Amino acid sequence: MDVQSCFPVWDQLTEDQRARILDHAASRSVKKGTVLHSGGDCTGLLAVRSGQLRAYMLSEEGREITLYRLFERDLCLFSASCMMQSIQFDITIQAEKDTELWVIPAEIYRQIMEESAPLSNYTNEIMAGRFSEVMWLMEQIMWKSMDRRIAAFLLEETAIEGVRSLHLTHETIANHLGTHREVVTRMLRYFQNEGMVRLSRGAVEVLDEERLKSLRDG
Amino acid sequence: MDVQSCFPVWDQLTEDQRARILDHAASRSVKKGTVLHSGGDCTGLLAVRSGQLRAYMLSEEGREITLYRLFERDLCLFSASCMMQSIQFDITIQAEKDTELWVIPAEIYRQIMEESAPLSNYTNEIMAGRFSEVMWLMEQIMWKSMDRRIAAFLLEETAIEGVRSLHLTHETIANHLGTHREVVTRMLRYFQNEGMVRLSRGAVEVLDEERLKSLRDG
Repeated sequence: MDVQSCFPVWDQLTEDQRARILDHAASRSVKKGTVLHSGGDCTGLLAVRSGQLRAYMLSEEGREITLYRLFERDLCLFSASCMMQSIQFDITIQAEKDTELWVIPAEIYRQIMEESAPLSNYTNEIMAGRFSEVMWLMEQIMWKSMDRRIAAFLLEETAIEGVRSLHLTHETIANHLGTHREVVTRMLRYFQNEGMVRLSRGAVEVLDEERLKSLRDG
Repeated sequence: MDVQSCFPVWDQLTEDQRARILDHAASRSVKKGTVLHSGGDCTGLLAVRSGQLRAYMLSEEGREITLYRLFERDLCLFSASCMMQSIQFDITIQAEKDTELWVIPAEIYRQIMEESAPLSNYTNEIMAGRFSEVMWLMEQIMWKSMDRRIAAFLLEETAIEGVRSLHLTHETIANHLGTHREVVTRMLRYFQNEGMVRLSRGAVEVLDEERLKSLRDG
Protein backbone atom coordinates (compact mmCIF):
# COMPACT_ATOMS: atom_id res chain seq x y z
CA MET A 1 0.00 0.00 0.00
CA ASP A 2 1.37 3.39 -0.94
CA VAL A 3 0.76 6.89 0.37
CA GLN A 4 -1.65 7.82 -2.45
CA SER A 5 -4.13 5.16 -1.20
CA CYS A 6 -4.79 7.49 1.75
CA PHE A 7 -5.93 10.22 -0.65
CA PRO A 8 -9.14 9.45 -2.57
CA VAL A 9 -8.64 12.84 -4.28
CA TRP A 10 -5.15 11.90 -5.56
CA ASP A 11 -6.31 12.11 -9.21
CA GLN A 12 -7.47 15.68 -8.64
CA LEU A 13 -4.06 16.89 -7.46
CA THR A 14 -1.54 18.36 -9.90
CA GLU A 15 1.69 16.54 -10.79
CA ASP A 16 3.60 19.03 -8.67
CA GLN A 17 1.32 18.60 -5.65
CA ARG A 18 1.62 14.81 -5.82
CA ALA A 19 5.39 15.05 -6.09
CA ARG A 20 5.55 17.28 -3.00
CA ILE A 21 3.56 14.75 -0.96
CA LEU A 22 5.63 11.80 -2.21
CA ASP A 23 8.93 13.63 -1.63
CA HIS A 24 8.10 14.61 1.95
CA ALA A 25 6.16 11.62 3.27
CA ALA A 26 8.48 9.81 5.67
CA SER A 27 7.87 6.15 6.34
CA ARG A 28 7.80 5.09 9.99
CA SER A 29 7.29 1.82 11.77
CA VAL A 30 6.32 1.70 15.45
CA LYS A 31 5.67 -0.97 18.04
CA LYS A 32 2.35 -1.38 19.84
CA GLY A 33 2.21 1.05 22.74
CA THR A 34 4.35 3.79 21.15
CA VAL A 35 3.04 7.31 21.75
CA LEU A 36 3.30 8.98 18.33
CA HIS A 37 1.96 12.37 19.28
CA SER A 38 1.11 14.24 22.43
CA GLY A 39 -0.04 17.64 23.59
CA GLY A 40 0.67 20.70 21.49
CA ASP A 41 3.42 19.15 19.33
CA CYS A 42 3.11 19.50 15.59
CA THR A 43 4.16 16.00 14.63
CA GLY A 44 2.72 16.13 11.11
CA LEU A 45 -0.13 14.35 9.39
CA LEU A 46 -0.17 10.63 10.05
CA ALA A 47 -1.34 8.32 7.27
CA VAL A 48 -1.89 4.75 8.46
CA ARG A 49 -0.37 2.08 6.22
CA SER A 50 -1.19 -0.88 8.46
CA GLY A 51 -1.99 -1.37 12.12
CA GLN A 52 -4.19 0.70 14.42
CA LEU A 53 -3.93 4.02 16.27
CA ARG A 54 -5.93 5.34 19.20
CA ALA A 55 -6.64 9.06 19.74
CA TYR A 56 -7.40 9.97 23.32
CA MET A 57 -7.79 12.89 25.67
CA LEU A 58 -5.61 13.05 28.78
CA SER A 59 -6.54 14.92 31.95
CA GLU A 60 -4.06 16.81 34.14
CA GLU A 61 -4.31 13.91 36.60
CA GLY A 62 -3.43 11.36 33.90
CA ARG A 63 -6.94 10.00 33.31
CA GLU A 64 -7.77 8.97 29.74
CA ILE A 65 -10.75 8.69 27.43
CA THR A 66 -10.64 7.25 23.91
CA LEU A 67 -11.97 9.66 21.26
CA TYR A 68 -11.63 7.55 18.12
CA ARG A 69 -9.50 4.97 16.32
CA LEU A 70 -7.55 5.19 13.08
CA PHE A 71 -7.22 2.22 10.76
CA GLU A 72 -5.55 1.44 7.42
CA ARG A 73 -5.81 4.39 4.98
CA ASP A 74 -6.99 6.81 7.68
CA LEU A 75 -5.43 10.26 7.97
CA CYS A 76 -4.86 11.90 11.34
CA LEU A 77 -5.19 15.70 11.13
CA PHE A 78 -4.93 16.62 14.77
CA SER A 79 -1.33 15.49 15.07
CA ALA A 80 -0.66 18.43 12.73
CA SER A 81 -2.70 21.02 14.60
CA CYS A 82 -0.29 23.82 13.64
CA MET A 83 -1.63 23.62 10.09
CA MET A 84 -4.87 25.32 11.22
CA GLN A 85 -5.09 28.24 13.61
CA SER A 86 -8.48 27.17 14.91
CA ILE A 87 -7.42 23.76 16.19
CA GLN A 88 -7.16 24.68 19.86
CA PHE A 89 -7.09 21.36 21.65
CA ASP A 90 -4.58 18.65 22.40
CA ILE A 91 -4.95 14.94 21.90
CA THR A 92 -2.59 12.00 22.31
CA ILE A 93 -2.06 9.40 19.60
CA GLN A 94 -0.80 5.95 20.50
CA ALA A 95 -0.19 2.82 18.43
CA GLU A 96 -2.67 0.18 19.59
CA LYS A 97 -1.05 -2.45 17.38
CA ASP A 98 2.33 -2.57 15.64
CA THR A 99 1.79 0.13 13.03
CA GLU A 100 3.36 1.31 9.78
CA LEU A 101 2.62 4.83 8.72
CA TRP A 102 3.69 7.85 6.76
CA VAL A 103 4.33 11.19 8.37
CA ILE A 104 3.60 14.21 6.13
CA PRO A 105 4.96 17.56 7.39
CA ALA A 106 2.13 19.91 8.43
CA GLU A 107 3.58 22.80 6.43
CA ILE A 108 3.66 20.81 3.17
CA TYR A 109 0.08 19.65 3.65
CA ARG A 110 -1.11 23.15 4.55
CA GLN A 111 0.47 24.64 1.43
CA ILE A 112 -1.17 22.11 -0.88
CA MET A 113 -4.51 22.47 0.90
CA GLU A 114 -4.38 26.22 0.33
CA GLU A 115 -3.96 25.68 -3.42
CA SER A 116 -6.24 22.71 -3.90
CA ALA A 117 -10.01 22.83 -3.37
CA PRO A 118 -10.27 19.01 -3.70
CA LEU A 119 -7.70 18.41 -0.94
CA SER A 120 -9.27 21.08 1.24
CA ASN A 121 -12.73 19.61 0.79
CA TYR A 122 -11.43 16.13 1.53
CA THR A 123 -9.84 17.51 4.72
CA ASN A 124 -13.23 19.00 5.61
CA GLU A 125 -14.83 15.58 5.24
CA ILE A 126 -12.19 13.96 7.46
CA MET A 127 -12.67 16.59 10.13
CA ALA A 128 -16.46 16.28 9.95
CA GLY A 129 -16.06 12.52 10.39
CA ARG A 130 -13.95 12.93 13.54
CA PHE A 131 -16.32 15.60 14.80
CA SER A 132 -19.20 13.13 14.36
CA GLU A 133 -17.32 10.49 16.38
CA VAL A 134 -16.67 12.95 19.20
CA MET A 135 -20.33 14.09 19.18
CA TRP A 136 -21.43 10.44 19.41
CA LEU A 137 -19.10 10.02 22.38
CA MET A 138 -20.48 13.16 24.00
CA GLU A 139 -23.99 11.76 23.67
CA GLN A 140 -22.87 8.51 25.29
CA ILE A 141 -21.20 10.32 28.18
CA MET A 142 -24.11 12.67 28.75
CA TRP A 143 -27.11 10.42 28.38
CA LYS A 144 -26.04 6.76 28.51
CA SER A 145 -25.37 4.76 31.63
CA MET A 146 -22.04 2.98 32.11
CA ASP A 147 -23.48 -0.54 31.62
CA ARG A 148 -24.60 0.42 28.11
CA ARG A 149 -21.26 2.08 27.35
CA ILE A 150 -19.29 -1.00 28.48
CA ALA A 151 -21.56 -3.27 26.42
CA ALA A 152 -21.05 -1.01 23.37
CA PHE A 153 -17.28 -0.99 23.95
CA LEU A 154 -17.02 -4.82 24.19
CA LEU A 155 -19.08 -5.23 21.01
CA GLU A 156 -16.95 -2.69 19.14
CA GLU A 157 -13.75 -4.43 20.23
CA THR A 158 -14.95 -7.88 19.13
CA ALA A 159 -15.89 -6.35 15.76
CA ILE A 160 -12.46 -4.68 15.36
CA GLU A 161 -10.49 -7.72 16.52
CA GLY A 162 -12.68 -10.34 14.89
CA VAL A 163 -12.49 -12.53 18.03
CA ARG A 164 -14.75 -13.10 21.02
CA SER A 165 -11.96 -13.31 23.58
CA LEU A 166 -10.46 -9.87 24.22
CA HIS A 167 -7.09 -9.36 25.88
CA LEU A 168 -7.97 -6.34 27.94
CA THR A 169 -7.46 -5.48 31.59
CA HIS A 170 -10.19 -3.68 33.51
CA GLU A 171 -7.78 -0.73 33.81
CA THR A 172 -7.49 -0.55 30.01
CA ILE A 173 -11.26 -0.58 29.56
CA ALA A 174 -11.57 2.17 32.19
CA ASN A 175 -9.04 4.28 30.26
CA HIS A 176 -10.98 3.87 27.03
CA LEU A 177 -14.21 4.98 28.68
CA GLY A 178 -12.85 7.70 30.95
CA THR A 179 -13.93 6.02 34.17
CA HIS A 180 -12.36 4.24 37.16
CA ARG A 181 -11.19 0.62 37.20
CA GLU A 182 -13.49 -0.25 40.10
CA VAL A 183 -16.56 0.81 38.09
CA VAL A 184 -15.52 -1.46 35.21
CA THR A 185 -14.76 -4.41 37.51
CA ARG A 186 -18.15 -4.14 39.21
CA MET A 187 -19.98 -3.99 35.90
CA LEU A 188 -18.05 -6.86 34.30
CA ARG A 189 -18.79 -9.07 37.32
CA TYR A 190 -22.45 -8.27 36.88
CA PHE A 191 -22.18 -9.15 33.16
CA GLN A 192 -20.49 -12.43 34.16
CA ASN A 193 -23.21 -13.30 36.67
CA GLU A 194 -25.74 -12.70 33.93
CA GLY A 195 -23.86 -15.04 31.58
CA MET A 196 -22.96 -12.36 29.05
CA VAL A 197 -19.16 -12.60 29.46
CA ARG A 198 -16.55 -14.86 31.05
CA LEU A 199 -13.69 -13.17 32.92
CA SER A 200 -10.16 -14.46 33.33
CA ARG A 201 -6.82 -12.85 34.10
CA GLY A 202 -6.30 -9.99 31.63
CA ALA A 203 -9.10 -11.16 29.36
CA VAL A 204 -12.84 -10.80 28.75
CA GLU A 205 -14.65 -13.36 26.62
CA VAL A 206 -17.97 -12.37 25.07
CA LEU A 207 -20.47 -15.24 25.52
CA ASP A 208 -23.81 -13.67 24.63
CA GLU A 209 -23.47 -11.06 21.92
CA GLU A 210 -27.24 -10.72 21.47
CA ARG A 211 -27.86 -9.79 25.09
CA LEU A 212 -25.00 -7.27 25.02
CA LYS A 213 -26.56 -5.75 21.89
CA SER A 214 -29.99 -5.41 23.46
CA LEU A 215 -28.36 -3.84 26.52
CA ARG A 216 -26.42 -1.39 24.31
CA ASP A 217 -29.49 -0.46 22.25
CA GLY A 218 -31.53 -0.09 25.44
CA MET B 1 -23.90 44.84 8.08
CA ASP B 2 -24.07 42.82 4.87
CA VAL B 3 -23.60 39.14 4.09
CA GLN B 4 -20.01 39.60 2.85
CA SER B 5 -18.93 40.64 6.38
CA CYS B 6 -19.40 36.98 7.39
CA PHE B 7 -16.80 35.94 4.79
CA PRO B 8 -13.25 37.10 5.48
CA VAL B 9 -12.29 35.38 2.21
CA TRP B 10 -14.83 37.42 0.18
CA ASP B 11 -12.02 39.09 -1.83
CA GLN B 12 -10.73 35.70 -2.87
CA LEU B 13 -14.03 34.61 -4.43
CA THR B 14 -14.77 35.19 -8.11
CA GLU B 15 -17.41 37.70 -9.26
CA ASP B 16 -19.67 34.80 -10.15
CA GLN B 17 -19.27 33.09 -6.77
CA ARG B 18 -20.04 36.31 -4.92
CA ALA B 19 -23.10 36.87 -7.06
CA ARG B 20 -24.39 33.37 -6.31
CA ILE B 21 -24.08 33.96 -2.56
CA LEU B 22 -25.72 37.39 -2.76
CA ASP B 23 -28.55 36.12 -4.99
CA HIS B 24 -29.42 33.19 -2.74
CA ALA B 25 -28.87 34.56 0.77
CA ALA B 26 -32.32 35.06 2.27
CA SER B 27 -32.72 37.56 5.07
CA ARG B 28 -34.60 36.37 8.14
CA SER B 29 -35.55 37.96 11.41
CA VAL B 30 -36.53 35.83 14.43
CA LYS B 31 -37.67 36.46 17.98
CA LYS B 32 -35.76 35.24 21.03
CA GLY B 33 -36.65 31.60 21.68
CA THR B 34 -37.28 30.62 18.04
CA VAL B 35 -35.87 27.22 17.10
CA LEU B 36 -34.16 27.82 13.76
CA HIS B 37 -32.92 24.32 13.13
CA SER B 38 -33.41 20.89 14.63
CA GLY B 39 -32.47 17.29 14.04
CA GLY B 40 -31.54 16.09 10.59
CA ASP B 41 -33.10 19.00 8.67
CA CYS B 42 -30.95 20.77 6.13
CA THR B 43 -31.98 24.33 6.91
CA GLY B 44 -28.99 25.96 5.18
CA LEU B 45 -26.00 27.91 6.42
CA LEU B 46 -26.89 30.54 8.96
CA ALA B 47 -24.90 33.79 8.95
CA VAL B 48 -25.59 35.93 12.02
CA ARG B 49 -26.24 39.62 11.28
CA SER B 50 -27.11 40.62 14.83
CA GLY B 51 -28.27 38.83 17.95
CA GLN B 52 -27.17 35.51 19.39
CA LEU B 53 -27.76 31.83 18.66
CA ARG B 54 -27.26 28.78 20.85
CA ALA B 55 -26.29 25.36 19.48
CA TYR B 56 -27.23 22.48 21.75
CA MET B 57 -27.57 18.73 21.87
CA LEU B 58 -30.92 17.21 22.80
CA SER B 59 -31.38 13.75 24.34
CA GLU B 60 -34.26 11.40 23.54
CA GLU B 61 -35.70 12.34 26.93
CA GLY B 62 -35.55 16.07 26.13
CA ARG B 63 -32.48 16.92 28.20
CA GLU B 64 -30.19 19.63 26.78
CA ILE B 65 -26.56 20.65 26.84
CA THR B 66 -25.19 23.82 25.23
CA LEU B 67 -22.37 23.14 22.76
CA TYR B 68 -21.47 26.67 21.66
CA ARG B 69 -22.87 30.12 20.87
CA LEU B 70 -22.91 32.07 17.62
CA PHE B 71 -22.54 35.84 17.56
CA GLU B 72 -22.48 38.60 14.95
CA ARG B 73 -20.61 37.55 11.78
CA ASP B 74 -20.52 33.86 12.82
CA LEU B 75 -21.42 31.16 10.32
CA CYS B 76 -23.27 28.02 11.39
CA LEU B 77 -22.28 25.00 9.27
CA PHE B 78 -24.13 22.25 11.08
CA SER B 79 -27.55 23.59 10.18
CA ALA B 80 -26.50 22.63 6.64
CA SER B 81 -25.25 19.15 7.43
CA CYS B 82 -26.39 17.80 4.05
CA MET B 83 -23.54 19.74 2.43
CA MET B 84 -21.03 17.20 3.81
CA GLN B 85 -21.54 13.45 3.87
CA SER B 86 -19.43 13.03 6.99
CA ILE B 87 -21.51 15.26 9.25
CA GLN B 88 -23.37 12.49 11.07
CA PHE B 89 -24.85 14.21 14.08
CA ASP B 90 -27.79 16.39 14.89
CA ILE B 91 -27.84 19.63 16.81
CA THR B 92 -30.54 22.17 17.59
CA ILE B 93 -30.11 25.91 16.98
CA GLN B 94 -32.18 28.40 18.91
CA ALA B 95 -32.22 32.21 18.96
CA GLU B 96 -31.07 33.28 22.42
CA LYS B 97 -31.81 36.92 21.62
CA ASP B 98 -33.88 38.55 18.88
CA THR B 99 -31.72 37.74 15.88
CA GLU B 100 -31.30 38.85 12.28
CA LEU B 101 -29.58 36.45 9.95
CA TRP B 102 -29.06 35.27 6.41
CA VAL B 103 -29.84 31.76 5.33
CA ILE B 104 -27.66 30.44 2.49
CA PRO B 105 -28.88 27.23 0.80
CA ALA B 106 -26.58 24.28 1.54
CA GLU B 107 -26.38 23.28 -2.11
CA ILE B 108 -25.18 26.74 -3.22
CA TYR B 109 -22.53 26.82 -0.51
CA ARG B 110 -21.39 23.29 -1.29
CA GLN B 111 -20.99 24.08 -4.99
CA ILE B 112 -18.86 27.16 -4.34
CA MET B 113 -16.81 25.34 -1.71
CA GLU B 114 -16.03 22.61 -4.25
CA GLU B 115 -14.65 25.21 -6.67
CA SER B 116 -12.95 27.53 -4.22
CA ALA B 117 -9.95 26.52 -2.10
CA PRO B 118 -10.18 29.77 -0.07
CA LEU B 119 -13.84 29.14 0.88
CA SER B 120 -13.13 25.49 1.61
CA ASN B 121 -10.15 26.39 3.82
CA TYR B 122 -12.19 29.01 5.62
CA THR B 123 -14.88 26.36 6.22
CA ASN B 124 -12.17 24.10 7.63
CA GLU B 125 -11.17 26.83 10.07
CA ILE B 126 -14.78 27.33 11.18
CA MET B 127 -15.23 23.61 11.75
CA ALA B 128 -11.94 23.35 13.64
CA GLY B 129 -13.10 26.24 15.84
CA ARG B 130 -16.39 24.50 16.70
CA PHE B 131 -14.53 21.23 17.21
CA SER B 132 -12.25 23.00 19.68
CA GLU B 133 -15.25 24.31 21.62
CA VAL B 134 -16.79 20.85 21.83
CA MET B 135 -13.45 19.35 22.95
CA TRP B 136 -13.22 22.01 25.66
CA LEU B 137 -16.73 21.05 26.77
CA MET B 138 -15.82 17.36 26.78
CA GLU B 139 -12.87 18.13 29.04
CA GLN B 140 -15.15 20.03 31.39
CA ILE B 141 -17.69 17.22 31.52
CA MET B 142 -15.08 14.51 31.99
CA TRP B 143 -12.70 16.04 34.46
CA LYS B 144 -14.26 19.12 36.07
CA SER B 145 -16.68 19.09 38.97
CA MET B 146 -20.08 20.78 38.67
CA ASP B 147 -19.17 23.67 41.02
CA ARG B 148 -16.34 24.68 38.66
CA ARG B 149 -18.58 24.31 35.61
CA ILE B 150 -21.30 26.50 37.13
CA ALA B 151 -18.72 29.13 38.13
CA ALA B 152 -17.33 29.11 34.56
CA PHE B 153 -20.84 29.40 33.11
CA LEU B 154 -21.80 32.38 35.30
CA LEU B 155 -18.55 34.16 34.40
CA GLU B 156 -19.06 33.51 30.68
CA GLU B 157 -22.63 34.83 30.85
CA THR B 158 -21.61 38.04 32.62
CA ALA B 159 -18.92 38.54 29.96
CA ILE B 160 -21.40 37.98 27.09
CA GLU B 161 -24.16 40.12 28.63
CA GLY B 162 -21.91 42.81 30.09
CA VAL B 163 -23.94 42.84 33.32
CA ARG B 164 -23.55 41.26 36.74
CA SER B 165 -27.23 40.44 37.20
CA LEU B 166 -28.27 37.55 34.98
CA HIS B 167 -31.88 36.75 34.16
CA LEU B 168 -31.63 32.99 34.27
CA THR B 169 -33.70 30.33 35.96
CA HIS B 170 -32.02 27.33 37.57
CA GLU B 171 -33.73 25.18 34.94
CA THR B 172 -32.11 27.23 32.15
CA ILE B 173 -28.66 26.87 33.71
CA ALA B 174 -29.23 23.12 34.07
CA ASN B 175 -30.12 22.91 30.36
CA HIS B 176 -26.96 24.73 29.37
CA LEU B 177 -24.81 22.38 31.42
CA GLY B 178 -26.63 19.12 30.76
CA THR B 179 -27.52 18.50 34.39
CA HIS B 180 -30.62 18.53 36.62
CA ARG B 181 -32.24 21.62 38.11
CA GLU B 182 -31.81 20.30 41.66
CA VAL B 183 -28.04 20.08 41.21
CA VAL B 184 -27.89 23.71 40.06
CA THR B 185 -30.15 24.94 42.88
CA ARG B 186 -28.03 23.20 45.52
CA MET B 187 -24.81 24.64 44.11
CA LEU B 188 -26.16 28.18 43.71
CA ARG B 189 -27.35 28.16 47.34
CA TYR B 190 -23.87 27.14 48.39
CA PHE B 191 -22.43 30.00 46.26
CA GLN B 192 -24.90 32.37 47.94
CA ASN B 193 -23.93 31.21 51.43
CA GLU B 194 -20.32 31.86 50.50
CA GLY B 195 -21.20 35.39 49.33
CA MET B 196 -20.28 34.78 45.69
CA VAL B 197 -23.78 35.37 44.27
CA ARG B 198 -27.18 36.74 45.32
CA LEU B 199 -30.28 34.79 44.24
CA SER B 200 -33.70 36.20 43.52
CA ARG B 201 -36.69 35.00 41.50
CA GLY B 202 -35.46 34.15 38.00
CA ALA B 203 -32.13 35.93 38.47
CA VAL B 204 -28.58 35.36 39.68
CA GLU B 205 -26.40 38.33 40.58
CA VAL B 206 -22.64 37.85 40.61
CA LEU B 207 -21.19 39.51 43.72
CA ASP B 208 -17.64 38.19 43.89
CA GLU B 209 -16.17 37.66 40.44
CA GLU B 210 -12.66 37.01 41.77
CA ARG B 211 -13.74 34.11 43.96
CA LEU B 212 -15.74 32.58 41.12
CA LYS B 213 -12.64 32.86 38.92
CA SER B 214 -10.41 31.15 41.43
CA LEU B 215 -13.03 28.40 41.82
CA ARG B 216 -13.23 28.00 38.02
CA ASP B 217 -9.44 27.90 37.61
CA GLY B 218 -9.18 25.51 40.55
